[in-house]
Amino acid sequence: MDTLTAYRNHIGDMGKLASALSLLGWDQQTHMPAKGVATRSQVTGKLSKMLFELLVSDELGRYLAELRKADGLSELERASIRRVGKNHDRNRAIPPELIEEQSIAQSQAQTAWIAARQANDFAAFRPHLEKMVGYARRFAEYYGYEEHPYDALLEDFEPGMTCRKLKAIIEPLRADLVPFLRRLQENGTPPDTSVLNGTFDAEAQRRLSRRVLELVRYDFDAGGLADVAHPFTTTIGPGDVRITNRYLETQLLSSVFSALHEGGHALYNQGMPEEVYALGLGGGASNGIHESQSRMIENQIGRSLPFWTFFQPVLGEFFPQFKTAKAKDLYAAANVVSPSLVRVEADEVTYNFHIMLRFEIEAGLLDGSIDVADLPRLWNDAMERYLGVVPPNDTQGVLQDVHWSMGYFGYFPSYMLGNLYAAQMFSTIREEVPTLDASIRTGDFEPLLAWLREKVHRHGAACEPQELTKRITGHELDGKHFVRYVTEKYGAIYRL
Amino acid sequence: MDTLTAYRNHIGDMGKLASALSLLGWDQQTHMPAKGVATRSQVTGKLSKMLFELLVSDELGRYLAELRKADGLSELERASIRRVGKNHDRNRAIPPELIEEQSIAQSQAQTAWIAARQANDFAAFRPHLEKMVGYARRFAEYYGYEEHPYDALLEDFEPGMTCRKLKAIIEPLRADLVPFLRRLQENGTPPDTSVLNGTFDAEAQRRLSRRVLELVRYDFDAGGLADVAHPFTTTIGPGDVRITNRYLETQLLSSVFSALHEGGHALYNQGMPEEVYALGLGGGASNGIHESQSRMIENQIGRSLPFWTFFQPVLGEFFPQFKTAKAKDLYAAANVVSPSLVRVEADEVTYNFHIMLRFEIEAGLLDGSIDVADLPRLWNDAMERYLGVVPPNDTQGVLQDVHWSMGYFGYFPSYMLGNLYAAQMFSTIREEVPTLDASIRTGDFEPLLAWLREKVHRHGAACEPQELTKRITGHELDGKHFVRYVTEKYGAIYRL
Repeated sequence: MDTLTAYRNHIGDMGKLASALSLLGWDQQTHMPAKGVATRSQVTGKLSKMLFELLVSDELGRYLAELRKADGLSELERASIRRVGKNHDRNRAIPPELIEEQSIAQSQAQTAWIAARQANDFAAFRPHLEKMVGYARRFAEYYGYEEHPYDALLEDFEPGMTCRKLKAIIEPLRADLVPFLRRLQENGTPPDTSVLNGTFDAEAQRRLSRRVLELVRYDFDAGGLADVAHPFTTTIGPGDVRITNRYLETQLLSSVFSALHEGGHALYNQGMPEEVYALGLGGGASNGIHESQSRMIENQIGRSLPFWTFFQPVLGEFFPQFKTAKAKDLYAAANVVSPSLVRVEADEVTYNFHIMLRFEIEAGLLDGSIDVADLPRLWNDAMERYLGVVPPNDTQGVLQDVHWSMGYFGYFPSYMLGNLYAAQMFSTIREEVPTLDASIRTGDFEPLLAWLREKVHRHGAACEPQELTKRITGHELDGKHFVRYVTEKYGAIYRL
Repeated sequence: MDTLTAYRNHIGDMGKLASALSLLGWDQQTHMPAKGVATRSQVTGKLSKMLFELLVSDELGRYLAELRKADGLSELERASIRRVGKNHDRNRAIPPELIEEQSIAQSQAQTAWIAARQANDFAAFRPHLEKMVGYARRFAEYYGYEEHPYDALLEDFEPGMTCRKLKAIIEPLRADLVPFLRRLQENGTPPDTSVLNGTFDAEAQRRLSRRVLELVRYDFDAGGLADVAHPFTTTIGPGDVRITNRYLETQLLSSVFSALHEGGHALYNQGMPEEVYALGLGGGASNGIHESQSRMIENQIGRSLPFWTFFQPVLGEFFPQFKTAKAKDLYAAANVVSPSLVRVEADEVTYNFHIMLRFEIEAGLLDGSIDVADLPRLWNDAMERYLGVVPPNDTQGVLQDVHWSMGYFGYFPSYMLGNLYAAQMFSTIREEVPTLDASIRTGDFEPLLAWLREKVHRHGAACEPQELTKRITGHELDGKHFVRYVTEKYGAIYRL
């Protein structure tokens, strides 16, 4: 067997374990009973360890060393060797026992987080979080970094990103957004949201979510929609990309925008060819690029006037109170800016502030300048500083996100980067597809999807995020597109 | 690490792979989208191969050899070494190439069976079935046997069972049941089933299934209920034993009895302590004993008058037409005897005939006295002989079951043995728990469950089925309990 075939088989075996792990994770959030957790964490720990061993194996190291010098490889194969190679090198630094230990702790921390969140009991979650921070710091040391331990973790989610670069992106963004938010609040005229008042049957919302997903061309024969506490999308393999959602009876738009958001993620993975998966490139260019796909469908599309022009009568089919509503009123009501407690419910203008505060906390946890015990206080202080609101309890504060319970430190900035990538890409789409608004107004999402498939989806992780952004938009990531997008849009809605 | 610890870790690793495989299988039947099948079969194939390699490994062989001579082991540990050891030895006996060859042929035979069944074309399935019989005969030679090659295969499903013993069980059973069925048909008064006529909303049936399962004390915190085309129960681990069901709008009792049946299987696995699972004994004493637990809850309980006395008003809560129905009428309508073409639709009196004819055919295929080419004729002859009905086509005849296409020869007798074990155990329960009927009449299933937990469930596969039966009931398996049960019950219902 030649080295390329052996390499591809090896990556294929890793993909099979990763697929089983994705299913185990999806099931844990959606269907697994409470008493199944002990076994599940052992099973997940074992398979994670096996996957890790394949990733760091000497065998894979030999294939990579040979293939790095080889000629005649396809572009995807070269990208695979680059990506998998980096992953291999980074993880060779971590002892396999530590991975299994962390994975078991992670499963327990997730369960503890669910309970703590329900009981508004940060103290019960604290020892689990301390453990997860401990693992993150040890991992950072094993990975190595030049400036800040956080950089070592960011690399997992946003290749090439650093603490210093993030600060350089955040600085001007904050300088523009803080005064803009103040102007909106002080001088703007908030839209009337009473059109959205009501109680909306959960089962009807569930059916509406299916309809919304069909509209944006999510393929149900290659996925599915399940109920969950905190919506997410998971890729079990090519042909199996699943969405989850939740339905709050007094917040209709919450499930609509979640469906659009998760739909955006899922379209990315449904748009990758099998060869991308076969070469271990199914994760996408980066978390930030993945998030740009979800945020664009949710915001640039789902919160636009063309979308609401089309969507108002659809909504009327499910909830008759909207049959006579005006698309413009719904559009305005869907775009209220209101500093909120919970990140996933945040509007476009304030969302990035939620990320800035998490970034500060994570960087502090990693370099040791912040203790876990202080998190509720630090969280609430930062909420007041950025948004002028203070959570009445930790459930709506520091306990709101699943990420830390999973040991994902360095993940949050992806959400902000996703907003910025989305705005920048969308300004390019507008130039290259001038009929976009007209097609969205008629419910035709094909021109948008065709552009995204060609420019973004089909490449999977073949491109680094900065390179992809430059290739698509002509220049590197720059927050000015986002600032222009929100100031123009919300300036008009708020009649500044 | 001492050998016992190493052995337990090895069994633990096998259990983790088995748990992942159970989830992959459950998901494939319940939630996996159509386009997920290609990846799923690769993932399942890979994990199955890994599990098999652990089972036949030299390492496990060494642990077993040492522990077979060791002192100071617990009863469960000794049982584990006996059971796992037998499994190891049997699978080591087959050349790995033959297993792989058979596995490919099996996959092709299943596809061919599905097509042949749809097209009512036995001839198209015949060469595949001949191949599967060929493999079964070769496997039997490798496993070894004393009297009959079929014995070597029965061992997989019912340890200690042989062709000779089965004949000795079947002979008197047939001698009693054939004339009893004739008497029922000729002299009996069939119950009026019109009380069950109607159309029953699937969602209400789903809620009813949950209620039924709660009643029999199935633990939803250690399981769940999902929709599926063909109901089954799957054990993903201790604390995670899942039930599936289907809901036919014109056949209310189909989902009720399926819930009870699968509930019986699930109670068995929910009643096994973690140590049983940890030692690889979570499969139960045998397929027949497992089936006895499902059949007892379905039939001895679910098709009894005390149950219907309690259940009639419950049913009325879900379907108002039953609010004024008489428990006795519902009980009678749930116990119609009607020779049918299809095993899975058979009633208590005729079910075993479906098994007898399959047993005769399987034994003949294994010893070469029957040719595959003759199966349609032999099948139809036996149907006429036992049940007085002849299938109008092979789809409803010899092609109805999936088992042979999967190479499962020796599995069918478990269904009959389950009926017989259930009747025999139940007559003991009646003696030892004289208040049983009274408690069932009030919806209290705790006394029954307490007995089953103590006598059957908690042992898992620690006991061989014959030994377990003797220990519980005082003597070996004897069909007379079943004969007495059905003749008394149906004699009364049919007013003989």
